[in-house]
Amino acid sequence: MSLEKFMSDAISPWMKENGPDCDIVMSSRIRLARNFENRTFPLIAKAEDLDDVLNFFQDSYQDASFKDRGQMQFVRIADLSPIEKKVFVEKHLISPHLAEHAEEAGVLLSESEQVSIMVNEEDHLRIQLYLPGFQLQKALQEAFEVDDWLEQKITYAFDEERGYLTTCPTNVGTGLRASVMMHLPALTMTHQMNRLTPAINQLGLVVRGIYGEGSEAQGNIYQISNQITLGKSEQDIVEDLESVVSQLVEQERQARQTLTEELSIQLEDRIFRSYGTLRYSRIIESKEAATCLSDVRLGIDLGYIEDMPQSILNELMVLIQPGFLQHYANRSLSGRERDVLRASLIRERMHLENN
Amino acid sequence: MSLEKFMSDAISPWMKENGPDCDIVMSSRIRLARNFENRTFPLIAKAEDLDDVLNFFQDSYQDASFKDRGQMQFVRIADLSPIEKKVFVEKHLISPHLAEHAEEAGVLLSESEQVSIMVNEEDHLRIQLYLPGFQLQKALQEAFEVDDWLEQKITYAFDEERGYLTTCPTNVGTGLRASVMMHLPALTMTHQMNRLTPAINQLGLVVRGIYGEGSEAQGNIYQISNQITLGKSEQDIVEDLESVVSQLVEQERQARQTLTEELSIQLEDRIFRSYGTLRYSRIIESKEAATCLSDVRLGIDLGYIEDMPQSILNELMVLIQPGFLQHYANRSLSGRERDVLRASLIRERMHLENN
Repeated sequence: MSLEKFMSDAISPWMKENGPDCDIVMSSRIRLARNFENRTFPLIAKAEDLDDVLNFFQDSYQDASFKDRGQMQFVRIADLSPIEKKVFVEKHLISPHLAEHAEEAGVLLSESEQVSIMVNEEDHLRIQLYLPGFQLQKALQEAFEVDDWLEQKITYAFDEERGYLTTCPTNVGTGLRASVMMHLPALTMTHQMNRLTPAINQLGLVVRGIYGEGSEAQGNIYQISNQITLGKSEQDIVEDLESVVSQLVEQERQARQTLTEELSIQLEDRIFRSYGTLRYSRIIESKEAATCLSDVRLGIDLGYIEDMPQSILNELMVLIQPGFLQHYANRSLSGRERDVLRASLIRERMHLENN
Repeated sequence: MSLEKFMSDAISPWMKENGPDCDIVMSSRIRLARNFENRTFPLIAKAEDLDDVLNFFQDSYQDASFKDRGQMQFVRIADLSPIEKKVFVEKHLISPHLAEHAEEAGVLLSESEQVSIMVNEEDHLRIQLYLPGFQLQKALQEAFEVDDWLEQKITYAFDEERGYLTTCPTNVGTGLRASVMMHLPALTMTHQMNRLTPAINQLGLVVRGIYGEGSEAQGNIYQISNQITLGKSEQDIVEDLESVVSQLVEQERQARQTLTEELSIQLEDRIFRSYGTLRYSRIIESKEAATCLSDVRLGIDLGYIEDMPQSILNELMVLIQPGFLQHYANRSLSGRERDVLRASLIRERMHLENN
């Protein structure tokens, strides 16, 4: 497979688009947890119950059209190879949980992969909607439209007092998790994230690494989301998150400004050394690659690097993951083989850009 | 000053030429220590005695022609600025000792800078002759020709039994120091130099770094020379050194072969990371630069890097020295300023090569 073809398969089309504040906010995501009324929730359901849900969903929505998003595509997770499952997780189309409990699970995807609806995850339905940059309000409106569209054929488990009912009590109420993926290299370099994270947690928000709970902030990318789903309206939840994200954007901008003023040459040195490493290394571990990609992306944002697009960070952060590398090689690879292929793909990708 | 102009001033013309085994032996040097008969040797001489020697030498040889080497140029060290003195040392045209005792000292240089005759160093005369690559025999013959040419007007201090008389007893006899500059990255990487150095010392030879006694082997460059000057003919001294150098050349070739066979991808990774560092860093210390240059030179020798000439190592090893950097900047520089200018010159030099 040529790298160009692979890339166009590998990267969700929406990832290449720009959005507001996209120098810092890479993407906005809304996730809604929903369950069918009068059906056992997935965690304790029997296989035939799960199968019923899956079949109903496939029959109702396979190839259906939703607004201008083109034909929806339904995928049974059990039909995916182990490597394909990894790739779906690395593209954030499905959760690791769904990949691990694949027997009766599925996902409905829009053409641009901006909408993904997981079936029989922890809840019957997990509606996800992504937008590039910082646009949580718009993402919430669009997620509601998807929700309304599904509701035309489904009656949700809903309680007048408690709102949407979910498997895990932490999701009850709105069933909403709003999150943004932020690139915060300057706040990380200046050690401010260590101080800010506990403060953000105290506001009822959670700070995580790029691949969710427990994952390290590879490449200085942080996922920030609401913890509380109950007792507040969806609108309030999103506004509270927006307010914190806006402040972080402002602080990151200030930290970048300070770095360029006070440590200009050191910063430039760090950025260009990382650029050189990505362009020339022959063996590279994912952690080093992520750090270098973060530096290069910062260099692009600050105008030091002019021959690479901003989207290179988003693209390559996905491309360098183990699942993708093995998908590209079309076989499983040892750690060392992955490090060699990772270096080679990064070089090729950057070379494409120069030509 | 443009870098191209500076380079052509900075690098001795002979350094750009190739010689036998020049993938490993960078240069061959013969040095002959000579003193005037009936004059006090420099170490204990009065200023007027030294001045006499200097004036005689200047009157006799300034603008003289020697064979096809063009006009000789005489330089009084006292006329050089502190930075120019450093540059002369870094080009190996004069010794650090001569630069430090500059009052009554001089140097006679051939156009290509292959012949340099220091006046009033530890001895009245120190004749140096350089050739590219491994050609000690030829260098010895040419040094003898210079010696004969000088002897037409000078009577040397010579004793039938002891040979040429010198200030330091370690030079008495032939007054000869033969040396080669070798690039031994593979023997260094495989830790064989630690084992070989004491064995070479036991044969009456000395292993040093690129800038002589006590200097570290920056850039995996080693200077190997004879210790003994008495009791052997010049021919024998050179043959003994040649024999050891030939063996080292052979062992370095074998070590390179083994490295490429057993650690191919690791070696390539190391070489190209160094290449990337040189091409993109904005701050670089001389030690790191020397290591990277050594890696890149090895990469050229092994055919991994095709867009750079072999001579880049020899050139840049001189160019990155503090004296040169300050000569280029035309003022004295702090350590950090040097690191920034070093990185900038290396980038520019490599860029010239690509265009």
